[in-house]
Amino acid sequence: MSDGSDRDSLPPPIIQEADPNNVIKILLATDNHIGYLERDPIRGQDSVNTFREILQLAVKHDVDFVLLAGDLFHENKPSRDCLYRTIALLREYTMGDKPVQIELLSDPDEGKADGFSFPAINYEDPNFNVGIPVFSIHGNHDDPQGAGSEGALCALDVLSVSGLLNYMGKIDLPMSDADASTTGIAVRPVLLRKGNTHLGLYGIGNVKDQRMHFELRSNRVRMFMPRNKDDWFNILLLHQNRVKHGPQESVPEGMFDDSIRLVVWGHEHDCRIVPEPVAGKNYYITQPGSSVATSLADGEAIEKHVALLKIEGKEFQMEPIPLRTVRPFVIEQVVLNEVADEEGLDITDQMEISKYLKAKVNILIDQANELWDERNAKAVAEGEEELPRMLPLIRLKVDTTGVSEMSNPIRFGQEFQGRIANPRDVLVFHRSKKAANKSTKVAIDEPELSIDDPSLSVSEKLAKVRVATLVNEYLAAQELQLLGEVGMSDAIQMFVEKDDTHAIQTHVAKALKELMKGVHANEEVGEDELEDMLVKAKEQQEREYIEMTKESKASKAKGKNKATADGPADDLSDDSMMMDVDAGAGSDFEELESDEPPKKKAAARTTRAPAKAPAKAPVKKAPARRGKKAVVSDSDDEIIEINDDGDDDDEEEERPKPTKRTNRAAVLSQPTKKAPTKKKVVAVPAKQSQLTFAPAGRSSRAAATKAREKMVVDDDESD
Amino acid sequence: MSDGSDRDSLPPPIIQEADPNNVIKILLATDNHIGYLERDPIRGQDSVNTFREILQLAVKHDVDFVLLAGDLFHENKPSRDCLYRTIALLREYTMGDKPVQIELLSDPDEGKADGFSFPAINYEDPNFNVGIPVFSIHGNHDDPQGAGSEGALCALDVLSVSGLLNYMGKIDLPMSDADASTTGIAVRPVLLRKGNTHLGLYGIGNVKDQRMHFELRSNRVRMFMPRNKDDWFNILLLHQNRVKHGPQESVPEGMFDDSIRLVVWGHEHDCRIVPEPVAGKNYYITQPGSSVATSLADGEAIEKHVALLKIEGKEFQMEPIPLRTVRPFVIEQVVLNEVADEEGLDITDQMEISKYLKAKVNILIDQANELWDERNAKAVAEGEEELPRMLPLIRLKVDTTGVSEMSNPIRFGQEFQGRIANPRDVLVFHRSKKAANKSTKVAIDEPELSIDDPSLSVSEKLAKVRVATLVNEYLAAQELQLLGEVGMSDAIQMFVEKDDTHAIQTHVAKALKELMKGVHANEEVGEDELEDMLVKAKEQQEREYIEMTKESKASKAKGKNKATADGPADDLSDDSMMMDVDAGAGSDFEELESDEPPKKKAAARTTRAPAKAPAKAPVKKAPARRGKKAVVSDSDDEIIEINDDGDDDDEEEERPKPTKRTNRAAVLSQPTKKAPTKKKVVAVPAKQSQLTFAPAGRSSRAAATKAREKMVVDDDESD
Repeated sequence: MSDGSDRDSLPPPIIQEADPNNVIKILLATDNHIGYLERDPIRGQDSVNTFREILQLAVKHDVDFVLLAGDLFHENKPSRDCLYRTIALLREYTMGDKPVQIELLSDPDEGKADGFSFPAINYEDPNFNVGIPVFSIHGNHDDPQGAGSEGALCALDVLSVSGLLNYMGKIDLPMSDADASTTGIAVRPVLLRKGNTHLGLYGIGNVKDQRMHFELRSNRVRMFMPRNKDDWFNILLLHQNRVKHGPQESVPEGMFDDSIRLVVWGHEHDCRIVPEPVAGKNYYITQPGSSVATSLADGEAIEKHVALLKIEGKEFQMEPIPLRTVRPFVIEQVVLNEVADEEGLDITDQMEISKYLKAKVNILIDQANELWDERNAKAVAEGEEELPRMLPLIRLKVDTTGVSEMSNPIRFGQEFQGRIANPRDVLVFHRSKKAANKSTKVAIDEPELSIDDPSLSVSEKLAKVRVATLVNEYLAAQELQLLGEVGMSDAIQMFVEKDDTHAIQTHVAKALKELMKGVHANEEVGEDELEDMLVKAKEQQEREYIEMTKESKASKAKGKNKATADGPADDLSDDSMMMDVDAGAGSDFEELESDEPPKKKAAARTTRAPAKAPAKAPVKKAPARRGKKAVVSDSDDEIIEINDDGDDDDEEEERPKPTKRTNRAAVLSQPTKKAPTKKKVVAVPAKQSQLTFAPAGRSSRAAATKAREKMVVDDDESD
Repeated sequence: MSDGSDRDSLPPPIIQEADPNNVIKILLATDNHIGYLERDPIRGQDSVNTFREILQLAVKHDVDFVLLAGDLFHENKPSRDCLYRTIALLREYTMGDKPVQIELLSDPDEGKADGFSFPAINYEDPNFNVGIPVFSIHGNHDDPQGAGSEGALCALDVLSVSGLLNYMGKIDLPMSDADASTTGIAVRPVLLRKGNTHLGLYGIGNVKDQRMHFELRSNRVRMFMPRNKDDWFNILLLHQNRVKHGPQESVPEGMFDDSIRLVVWGHEHDCRIVPEPVAGKNYYITQPGSSVATSLADGEAIEKHVALLKIEGKEFQMEPIPLRTVRPFVIEQVVLNEVADEEGLDITDQMEISKYLKAKVNILIDQANELWDERNAKAVAEGEEELPRMLPLIRLKVDTTGVSEMSNPIRFGQEFQGRIANPRDVLVFHRSKKAANKSTKVAIDEPELSIDDPSLSVSEKLAKVRVATLVNEYLAAQELQLLGEVGMSDAIQMFVEKDDTHAIQTHVAKALKELMKGVHANEEVGEDELEDMLVKAKEQQEREYIEMTKESKASKAKGKNKATADGPADDLSDDSMMMDVDAGAGSDFEELESDEPPKKKAAARTTRAPAKAPAKAPVKKAPARRGKKAVVSDSDDEIIEINDDGDDDDEEEERPKPTKRTNRAAVLSQPTKKAPTKKKVVAVPAKQSQLTFAPAGRSSRAAATKAREKMVVDDDESD
C-alpha cells in the first residue's frame, strides 16, 4: 500500500524563485468529517481534534488561507455540539490581526445572503477581523438540503453567514429529478491576487453522480473564466468519486480544461496528496484525503496528511504535512483456509480459531503502536512536542470460506477494550465466492455490509433502519395509503439519510394537492364521492408514475445500447464530457479587460453546432419569462438543452446574473411526464469534437485506467 | 381587554435629569419565537420580520444594547433556515462602528467556551466590531438540551460562540429528575457601567416549573451580588409562568430581593410592558410579551410592543414602542344558545348557523383592518413610512352548547382564504359544562385541544402525534420489549418535543447497561440463560421503578398534607421562597470593594440556622471531591441540602468558580432509589422567617392575587 509518497517518475513541481510578496501560501485539507462518531466514548472527538490541528498548522505556517474540498461535516445536519465546536475552532484560529494579503478581485457580493448588506467573503467585511480566511466547497455529506425561504441551505451556509467561512461552489439544485434535465452547473470563480500572482478558485460542490455524469455528458458544466484565463493559476475543487464505482459513477481525471493548473479532489479518503500529473494534460491532481478514518478500509490506513501549497505566478509547490492527531490504523486480512493448509490450524475448532485471531490482533496492535512511536519520534526530532499514544484502530478481515461456525466478533473484541479504539468491530468476516482463492496479497475488499459501517453505532443503525421500515409499514397501514406510495420511499430516504424531517410532510402535502385537483372546495361532495375521487386520482397518479418509470428505463436502455455501439458502456468517453468555458465572465474586472480575442471561445464560435431540436422542447413556462432563461441558454451553443429559440443574448452572457439560490429550473423547461425529454438527452452526440479543448484521448484515458488499477483495493472507502 | 396601557394608579417611573453620558438605553423585547409556523405560506416569515423590526428599532433609537428574556427561537432545534436568518439579522444590525459605551465590570470570561481564548461577551472580543450587543436568557422553547461533550447546549450557545449574542442566565441542568434535588440555581450577574450608572443584569433562564418551585421553596436560588448591591440598578430577567396554572406552576411576583429594581418577565405572551409596581416591594415588573402571536388566545390580541428602557443612576423610564409588523388579531366569542334566545337563530339548522358565523367573521375582519389602518395612520402621522395591510388573524370562539351538529370548521375557513391569515382555524368550538352559562363577557377560555394549537400545521401535528404513538407501539412489539417501558415514555417525549433524536438511543443504552450488570462479558452464557437473566433484570428494574413511583407519590401526598396544615396547598407562601443573596460574589471588582459589612448577610449569620440532618444525607460520591462541593454548600447556611459536614469554605464562597456546564449534581449527593431523599426535602420548614429579606406577606400576595384575577382570561396563552 502506498503511504502518500507514491509519485513515481515526475519530479515534484517546485517554485523556481520565491519572492514572498508574490507567493500565496495555502493550507490544503479536505473531508474533515467533523462530528464523525461523535457519540463514541473513545473516538468521539477525533474529527474535532484533527480539525483543530489543521487550523493550528495554518496558523503555524502563516498561510494566506485554508482551502477545503468538502465534507467539513459528517452529518448533513451537524449536531448542536458539533456546530458549536466547529464555530469555536474557526473563531479561535482564523480570526485575528494577521493582515490578509490576498486581494479579492471577483465580486465580494457573489453569493451573499439575500436582503443583507454584508459581503459573502468574510475578510471583506470591516466588522470582522479575519486573519486566515477559510474557503470550502460542500461535499456529499454536507450538501444543501431542504427548501426553506432561503432555498436549499447547507451547514456551510450557516458558517458563511456567521462570517467564519467562505462557502464557494454552491450549485443550483434542481427542484426534482425531472428538473435536473434543465439546469446546468455554473462555476463562478473566486479570483484572488497577491503581488503578481493571480489565483482563480473554481469550486464545484458535490452533486449526485448521476447528475454530474449527465451534466458532463451534456457539456453543461460551464466555467466562467476571465478572458486572460491562461495568465491565472487556476485551481479546480471538486468532491466526486474518482475511483470508478459503475458506469456513471465517477469523474474521469482527464476531462478538465487546460487552463486549470491544479485539481483538488475531495471525497476520496486515501491520502494521495502529492500532486500526480495527468497524462496529456497540463494539470496535476492532488487528493488530500480525509483527516479522519470514517471506514476501516485499506485506503484509510495510509498516513493522513494535509499540505502546504505555495503558488507563485503559474508555478506551485506542495509540502505534505503528516497529521499527528490521527489514530494509527493497521488493517490486515487472513484467509482461514490457507492458515489451515499452511500452519495446520484446526478450522473446525472455534476456540482454536479465536486463539489464532487474537494472536494476530495482538501483533497488529504492536505494529500500530510502533507506527505511532515512529511518527512521534520523527516529529519530536523535528522539534515538535511529544504526544501521548492514542489507542489504535485495528481491522482484521477474516476470510471464513470453508469454516462452518465462527464466534461472535463483538464478544471477541471485548478482550481488546482499553487497547484499541474500535473493540466492537475489530473483526469482519467474509466469504470468498471462489472457494479456492489463494492470493492473499491482492486484498479482496468486498463491500462490507452496511451493518458493519462503523460510522454508526449499533443502536443508531437499528434506529435508522427500523424507523424507515416502520414508517413505511405504518403508512401502508394507515389512512395515508390513499396517497399511494408513489415517491414516498424517496421522501423516507431523505428523512432518514439527510435528517430532513419535513421530507415526508412535503411529499404528503404535494401528493394531497395532486389528489385534490378538481375537487373544488366549496362544492358539496358526499363522503362516498370524495373517496371515489381520491381512489381514482390515486390510480391515475400511479399510472403516470409507472409510465414515467418505463420511459426512464427505456431511455436508460437506449443510452446503454448507444454506448455499446460507440464503445464499452461502462467506459466514459472523456472527450464527450468537456467542461464548457465561458471566457467572458471575468470581463468586468479592470485588470482582466483584455482585447485579445479569447481563443477557445472564438474556436467554439466558428465551429458552432446547429442547435438540436430547439423548437420542439416542451418548454411549458418559458415564454412568460424568457429574459431569465437567457442566462442559461447563453454563451456557447453547445449547450444542447433549452435552446428553444436559438436566440442568444450576448449581454447576458458577458455579465451573468448571480443565480445562486434561485431555481431557474422551474422557470425554464418543465418536462411533463409524457414529453419525451429524456430521449432528447440520450440523443446528444457522444462526441462533440468541436469542443475538445484539451487533447484528450487514449493517453489520458490510459493514465486514468492505470490510476484506477492502482486504486482497485480502495474501492469502498470513498465517502 | 387592556391594550398595554393598563397601569392604573402609579405614575410611570421617570428619569429626573438626563445626562446622556449616564443614561443607559436598552431596547427591551422578548419571546420572539423565530421560526414559529415557518412553513406556513402566509405567516411563515412573521416572526423573522418582526425580529428584524426590533433590531431596526434598536438601531434607530441608538440603544446601548438589546435585552431579551427568552424564547428567541420557537423550536428547540431551529431549522437551518431559521438559524441562518437569525444569524444574518444579528450580523446585519448589531455589528458596526457605533462605539459600545457600556463598560463590562464583571468577568468577560464568565461562561466562555471551554478551551478557547475568546471572551463570552462579544464586544470584548477585539476581532468583532460589535455596535449593539444583544443579551438574552433562554426560554422554555430554546432551553439547553442533550449532553454532548460540551454539556447541554442551546441554540443561544451557537449564537454566543459565533460572537453575535451574549447568552446569560445559563443554569446547571440536573442530570436527571433525581439529581434535581442536589443542584441549586446560581445567578451570576453581568455588571455594566456607563458614566455613573451601574447596571447589574441577573438572568435566570427557564427551568421546569417543578424545579423552579423546588429551588425557590428550598431557598436555593442564589444571587451573587456585589457588596454594594444597593448602589446598582439591578434588573432580574426570568422566563417562567407568572399566571397561575397550578399549585407549583408559577413564580409569585413578590418574591424577589429588594435590591432588584426591575423584573423583566419573559414567557407570558400578553404585552404588559408598562412597568407595574408590586405592592410592598421596591421593584416594578415589566412583561414585554411576545413579538408574534403563537396562539389565538385573548392575551395575544393585545397590541404588541417592545420598549425603550432608559436608566440613569437608580431611576428608569420606559417608553413602549408598538410593533408595526405584527398582524392585527381580533378574537371574539359567541354562545349560540344565547344568540338563539336573543336573535332567534335556528340552531338546529347548520346552514343557518354557518351564515350567522360568516357574517360575524366578516365583521371581525373589518375590525381588524380598521385596527391596522388606525395604527398605520398613527405611525405615519409620527413620521413613519406607511406599511401595506397585512392579512389579519381572526378567531371566533363558538360555544356550541345545545347544538347537535356543526359543519366542518376547516371548510368554513376556506371562504376567507386571501382575506385572513389563518383560514384553517378561524373557528374553534367548545361546549360549556354548565349548560346555562349566560355571561359572555367573562371569557371562558377553555384550554384548546392541542389539535387546535396553531403553532403546528395539521400534518406536523399528525406527524408528531403519530410518530410518538407509533414508536411506542413499535417498541412494544419488537425485541426491545426486553428493556421494558421504564423511562421510555420520557425518552419518547424528549424525542418528539425537543427534537432530541438521541433521547431514545440514550435511554436504550442506559437500560441495556443496567440489564447487563452482572452479566460478565467473558463468561460463557447460553442463550437461554442470557434471556433468563435479562428477564429477571427487567423485572427487577420494573419493581424498582414502581417503588420509586410509590415513594414519590407518597412524598407528594405528604407534601400536600403538610401544605394543607400550614395553609392552602395550592397557595405558595412567598416568604418560604426567598432568593438567597450572596453579597460577597462581586468583591473581586475593584470599585465594589467596600468594607461596610453586608447587612443582609450579617443578619443571616446571626440567625444562622443549625444545619439540618447533615451527616445522614446519602452523599455517595461527595467525599472524593469535597472541594468542588463547597461551591454549592457555601455562603449562607440556609441552603438546607447537602450540608453533609457543615464545613463552609469561605474562600470558595468569595470567589465562586465558574461552574457553568459542569454537572456538579453528579459530584454531589446521588440519591439512590431506596434512600428517602424526598422525605428530607419535604421536611424543609415551610417558613424560614430569619431569611425574610423583603417584607413579604399579605400585601404582596394580595397584589399578586389581584393581578391574577385580572389575568384569568389569559390563562392559556403563556408559552
